[in-house]
Amino acid sequence: MTGWVTVAGLGPGNMRLVTPEVTQALAEATDVVGYIPYVARIAPRDGLTLHATDNRVELTRARHALDMAAAGGRVVVVSSGDPGVFAMASALFEALTPGETPDLRILPGITAMLAAAARIGAPLGHDFCAINLSDNLKPWALVERRLRLAAQADFAMAFYNPRSASRPHQFARALEVLREECGAARLISFARAVSTPDETTSTTTLGEATADMADMRTVVIVGNSATRRIGPWVYTPRGVE
Amino acid sequence: MTGWVTVAGLGPGNMRLVTPEVTQALAEATDVVGYIPYVARIAPRDGLTLHATDNRVELTRARHALDMAAAGGRVVVVSSGDPGVFAMASALFEALTPGETPDLRILPGITAMLAAAARIGAPLGHDFCAINLSDNLKPWALVERRLRLAAQADFAMAFYNPRSASRPHQFARALEVLREECGAARLISFARAVSTPDETTSTTTLGEATADMADMRTVVIVGNSATRRIGPWVYTPRGVE
Repeated sequence: MTGWVTVAGLGPGNMRLVTPEVTQALAEATDVVGYIPYVARIAPRDGLTLHATDNRVELTRARHALDMAAAGGRVVVVSSGDPGVFAMASALFEALTPGETPDLRILPGITAMLAAAARIGAPLGHDFCAINLSDNLKPWALVERRLRLAAQADFAMAFYNPRSASRPHQFARALEVLREECGAARLISFARAVSTPDETTSTTTLGEATADMADMRTVVIVGNSATRRIGPWVYTPRGVE
Repeated sequence: MTGWVTVAGLGPGNMRLVTPEVTQALAEATDVVGYIPYVARIAPRDGLTLHATDNRVELTRARHALDMAAAGGRVVVVSSGDPGVFAMASALFEALTPGETPDLRILPGITAMLAAAARIGAPLGHDFCAINLSDNLKPWALVERRLRLAAQADFAMAFYNPRSASRPHQFARALEVLREECGAARLISFARAVSTPDETTSTTTLGEATADMADMRTVVIVGNSATRRIGPWVYTPRGVE
């Protein structure tokens, strides 16, 4: 039996946002590996073993998936959203040893910022950037530097992992930096648990935004200098005069 | 009859990358509106009128969709990729008149850069930006400014619309700017027509890259300073030391 590893994006939560390609890979799998809440989205069936592991063990999980595939398993590593955006795909490549050439595929998914943008309107309709606000894997000073440069480039910005219990003050600091660079009138949107029963979205200005508007299930989107509201929606025009 | 407008992302080309949510909207539609090659992807059926229009008429197309919905139509505006990324969602909001409140939904799709990244490996696995290199709707000087700031932020970068027959020299200029900011050794990947029978991908360095490696069907991805190869893949590590 020839094994394989597929790193699959489950999208933001709703099964109607899972691509047919990912659904098929899951149907062919012998093993599904991933963070506990993502594995919980996979229906159990005969012939499928679910391997749910805690957060912050990405490299161990990736190595486990590669080893099972080397032993003949058909292994799907599940990520929320898109596996290439602050998720498991890079961890798989980090876990590879030089010369190891598994049958490895990455299957894209609907990433959180695009699901959120669709609910809000079209806030990422012009040039934009995506920044992971967690400093688990990079120094906080680099986050601040990127926020300032992104603001100077007049990018719309999407923030993943804006806030957690272990670092409650950093998102407040990010808002301060953004107010300095973008001004108090700049629009900011909070989209939590998009496409799930817990979904909430709201839009305010940097001047009115407070850190407790975000948690780890929230994607935050800051507009560029032209982002505006019309009716209940927020959008960034395609062009710049 | 109550009409509605849905702006739907068809993904990069392969039907296995169309979400069930989009498939359902298309099944319920009376009218499909969009750029000729995207409408050509929709199967004709009784009760469905296809309205294919040329490029660069986005506002006219958006207004037409809104007018058909106001008259009771169930209208799907189709975009390639994700409708909120350099596509039709912003055009719909630009075409709205103040006080107009249509039943309007945006349905996300797999955007080209994420489909391309998945084929290449995980080049967008750390903070990144997306820039439309066309100067149809913004001054070229702003493109160059954004390239420099994005490089200084050490973002990985994805470029949409890198090159067209009407502006053959600009992508060559973009490569020059990137070489100045990132150095000749930086990795750059070209992904053309991902998920279609015409798909090709390749990776080289900025020093070796030439403008004719891209056309309008290509997404270009430039790594950050840590982006590396392993086997046939290119990835950006999750962390920064």
